[in-house]
Amino acid sequence: MTDTARYLLTSVCPDRRGIVAAVMGFLHGEGLSIDEAHQHGTPEGQFFLRIAMSGAVGAVPDLATLAARFAPIEAEFALQAELRDLARRARVVIMVSRTGHCLHDLLHRWQAGQLPIDIPAVVSNHDDQRSFTQWCGLPFHHLPASGDRDADDDRLLALIDGLDVDLVVLARYMQILSPRLCARLAGRCINIHHGFLPSFKGARPYHQAHARGVKIIGATAHYVTTDLDEGPIIEQATQRVSHSRSPEELVTIGQEVEASVLSRAVRWHVEGRVQIAGQRTIVFD
Amino acid sequence: MTDTARYLLTSVCPDRRGIVAAVMGFLHGEGLSIDEAHQHGTPEGQFFLRIAMSGAVGAVPDLATLAARFAPIEAEFALQAELRDLARRARVVIMVSRTGHCLHDLLHRWQAGQLPIDIPAVVSNHDDQRSFTQWCGLPFHHLPASGDRDADDDRLLALIDGLDVDLVVLARYMQILSPRLCARLAGRCINIHHGFLPSFKGARPYHQAHARGVKIIGATAHYVTTDLDEGPIIEQATQRVSHSRSPEELVTIGQEVEASVLSRAVRWHVEGRVQIAGQRTIVFD
Amino acid sequence: MTDTARYLLTSVCPDRRGIVAAVMGFLHGEGLSIDEAHQHGTPEGQFFLRIAMSGAVGAVPDLATLAARFAPIEAEFALQAELRDLARRARVVIMVSRTGHCLHDLLHRWQAGQLPIDIPAVVSNHDDQRSFTQWCGLPFHHLPASGDRDADDDRLLALIDGLDVDLVVLARYMQILSPRLCARLAGRCINIHHGFLPSFKGARPYHQAHARGVKIIGATAHYVTTDLDEGPIIEQATQRVSHSRSPEELVTIGQEVEASVLSRAVRWHVEGRVQIAGQRTIVFD
Amino acid sequence: MTDTARYLLTSVCPDRRGIVAAVMGFLHGEGLSIDEAHQHGTPEGQFFLRIAMSGAVGAVPDLATLAARFAPIEAEFALQAELRDLARRARVVIMVSRTGHCLHDLLHRWQAGQLPIDIPAVVSNHDDQRSFTQWCGLPFHHLPASGDRDADDDRLLALIDGLDVDLVVLARYMQILSPRLCARLAGRCINIHHGFLPSFKGARPYHQAHARGVKIIGATAHYVTTDLDEGPIIEQATQRVSHSRSPEELVTIGQEVEASVLSRAVRWHVEGRVQIAGQRTIVFD
Repeated sequence: MTDTARYLLTSVCPDRRGIVAAVMGFLHGEGLSIDEAHQHGTPEGQFFLRIAMSGAVGAVPDLATLAARFAPIEAEFALQAELRDLARRARVVIMVSRTGHCLHDLLHRWQAGQLPIDIPAVVSNHDDQRSFTQWCGLPFHHLPASGDRDADDDRLLALIDGLDVDLVVLARYMQILSPRLCARLAGRCINIHHGFLPSFKGARPYHQAHARGVKIIGATAHYVTTDLDEGPIIEQATQRVSHSRSPEELVTIGQEVEASVLSRAVRWHVEGRVQIAGQRTIVFD
Repeated sequence: MTDTARYLLTSVCPDRRGIVAAVMGFLHGEGLSIDEAHQHGTPEGQFFLRIAMSGAVGAVPDLATLAARFAPIEAEFALQAELRDLARRARVVIMVSRTGHCLHDLLHRWQAGQLPIDIPAVVSNHDDQRSFTQWCGLPFHHLPASGDRDADDDRLLALIDGLDVDLVVLARYMQILSPRLCARLAGRCINIHHGFLPSFKGARPYHQAHARGVKIIGATAHYVTTDLDEGPIIEQATQRVSHSRSPEELVTIGQEVEASVLSRAVRWHVEGRVQIAGQRTIVFD
Repeated sequence: MTDTARYLLTSVCPDRRGIVAAVMGFLHGEGLSIDEAHQHGTPEGQFFLRIAMSGAVGAVPDLATLAARFAPIEAEFALQAELRDLARRARVVIMVSRTGHCLHDLLHRWQAGQLPIDIPAVVSNHDDQRSFTQWCGLPFHHLPASGDRDADDDRLLALIDGLDVDLVVLARYMQILSPRLCARLAGRCINIHHGFLPSFKGARPYHQAHARGVKIIGATAHYVTTDLDEGPIIEQATQRVSHSRSPEELVTIGQEVEASVLSRAVRWHVEGRVQIAGQRTIVFD
Repeated sequence: MTDTARYLLTSVCPDRRGIVAAVMGFLHGEGLSIDEAHQHGTPEGQFFLRIAMSGAVGAVPDLATLAARFAPIEAEFALQAELRDLARRARVVIMVSRTGHCLHDLLHRWQAGQLPIDIPAVVSNHDDQRSFTQWCGLPFHHLPASGDRDADDDRLLALIDGLDVDLVVLARYMQILSPRLCARLAGRCINIHHGFLPSFKGARPYHQAHARGVKIIGATAHYVTTDLDEGPIIEQATQRVSHSRSPEELVTIGQEVEASVLSRAVRWHVEGRVQIAGQRTIVFD
């Protein structure tokens, strides 16, 4: 029996004729089968590509060889490309404060084998989620705010750097990241906002939604940038609510939406389905 | 065979013990059966009531008599009450500019006997919708902007006053109403905004939504106030959209949502199901 | 400071004039305030009522006294009524097999104080969910199938009877209940079916849905009756899926819908919001 | 200024390595740019492809030339392919009985330039929709049932054959097509069923849904086959309904869903986005 190599190519480049033919021809020449292929050209002239491919180990090149042979095409089309081995699971650190619904949802999916990630650490500025995290067999790091923001950032970055992290998920982490952290984690830090962005940025979005009298609430997963709640949106969902719901009931109703939205965003990110195009995202689902 | 009288009571008053018992006892004493009853007390201490009732003509008082006998209860509980005969259909003027999807939806429902309203006029600042309106057998009034805003308002108000109108529906009427019009039509003018308020107020909301990269678009029906797109929301709905949709496609997708939302808001209003509580609405559906 | 007594009246009776007035008048006479009131008359002539009420302890009768004084009204209108103290939490036994997503969702909500229930036991025919249940601090009963169905039923009923159980929740319990169990638990046993009933009854509904090529999958919470998957439906929800999803992916996508639907059904049941009318339910949400 | 030629390739073939590379390489060699590309391999081993492409008239071959040059690839991969000029609008006959909501929705979209089709005829077994159809400037054919089913079929087929029709849309046409008609229109006849298939096949689905007490109703657009309501599903949508809705209200609520679902199915079909795979459809949206 032969093992199967599964690779993923994601790329962005200026849109022009011949990209797909060149890439497909190359991959075919290397003996690879195309399992999934998505493309999108933006009105601004960027061209995004995502190709999942496979072949028998031995019959197809290893990843390093493939990448080396692909270099001329990258150069020709000015592709910014990433080639990954799909067998390697993304390493995801989850950050949380006191409220556990998003953390619990992510860890249950992970336990059930439904989220293809490794979780080297759960980090929190509170201690509430230690018990559940450890019951799941995962390391819990309690990093309370020390009052010295720079030192806190240093400690967090040291932890992240030491764990070789692909993605940081803010699963209801109720601290605003410093600009330094935002910059260091650019494009690999996802936050769940408990409001339907761009409405109701900032604090207590359900109370804002209640005061405004909206008939539908929502949640938004987005990449973190230095502009609070302004990063590129990955996924959103909404839920109808009636006039009879109190702000506290909106909080409860919304938690389910938050957990659902965040888990989809995390899955899509680690499967290489999300690409950033300015303030927008391309999601090849 | 006996005819049935069907009445509707809607009221708001300061919340205190005994309101429902007093009202129900009174209606029972007058020989009326309760067909539907809804109540809601707000955290701010207002109490809203909607009761649909019926009885055999002759066995129950006529509306004027009922109202007169109800007066002591109104006084006792400081009720602001409205008593209506449900047999009387609301008179609704529809205003539209060039885009007809909301108008067409409303008129088709009306033709199919699904919207219990009379439509004494369709008013437009353009002539595009004349043909369809007249094919429906309805009067079409073309009131183009003359350049003199006050005179335009006078003309419109004269028309509305002369037609004994209960409700004005802005079915994609692309003019901002003057403060005078807003004041005159307070609580009886519904607008459809083609965005998910409070996001994307003002012009070209689908283009705003596209630029921001939201994954869900929406529409909002609200009462018109002098604060543009800030009036109490009656109904909203949303629709998922992918990254591949252009602003123009969002416009097309959204039109269906707009028509659907507006028709529900109009129905609920004319059935006395909507009551205004500050910037919020109570919808007894 | 005075404590507040909170009571709930739910009732069904033949529809006739005067019920609401009589009940409301009675409650008012007993010094009670109405906090929530819902009513529904069916086309078949049944009248359903749900009234949540409150008053200062001492100023209003205790539950037994209230019930005794209410008896004449019950008799007059042939009301089948239930009067409960809302301070008493429902006792809910959860049954599960191997798959834990519904159990986990219910227990997390319970831990977060969002489900007003006591859970005297989690029961399973497998041992998989013991660890999580016990981490939650709850008793776990492993009742594997012994091969003697009657003896199994006896053991389960003894457990349920001994725990004074108000509701049994089948949270993905993959055994068909015997007619004897169905009868004994009539009206107080809720099942989550992982398909959109009445489509896809029985085993492997997601595989059935995939084979049929539906574009939307769903889940259904219903009361258990002897007719498999035919009991009165309490709640349903749906989720769009594309042609590219495998049956296994439908299973994963559907789990979220199942947990969400089941938790709403359980909440509504324990809050006395669900009443059975033949094969239908009235849900006063 | 140069005109742009826009072509569409849709194909199905046995899944094997190299299809995409061969097709993409061919199209590139012919000077064509890829505007949209979708692919899907089924578990059963079929491979579906849809490619929209364009190029300057003169610089790229005309359609007949392109098809001729493509023949060797078709042969090599056993492709069942269709090549079309996207400038040619599909010719769609709409059939309707008395209820007009789906017809009106389709015609309004067509009038607004949102459905890229030509409508050579509206056909009905009743006369109710003549006025609206003719107001839209379209030919209306009244073909009442004569009692002789074969003769009726002959007349209808003669009409359809004479009009060079690409698609027949049953927009609430309340007659069951004969097996002969189903066979003649296989793969080019779409029906809207006013129920959420596979639940509630056959007559009066909303009344069936009401009797069963479902909490969500739906509509289904599907290709017509000789098995009533069993053809491949193209699109579905659902809508929540409460216990308080009568069957008649479900009918009204459902009409909006029906019109919306049908219009999407028609659009996707005429844009070549739908391909049939056994009892399922692939929808490349």
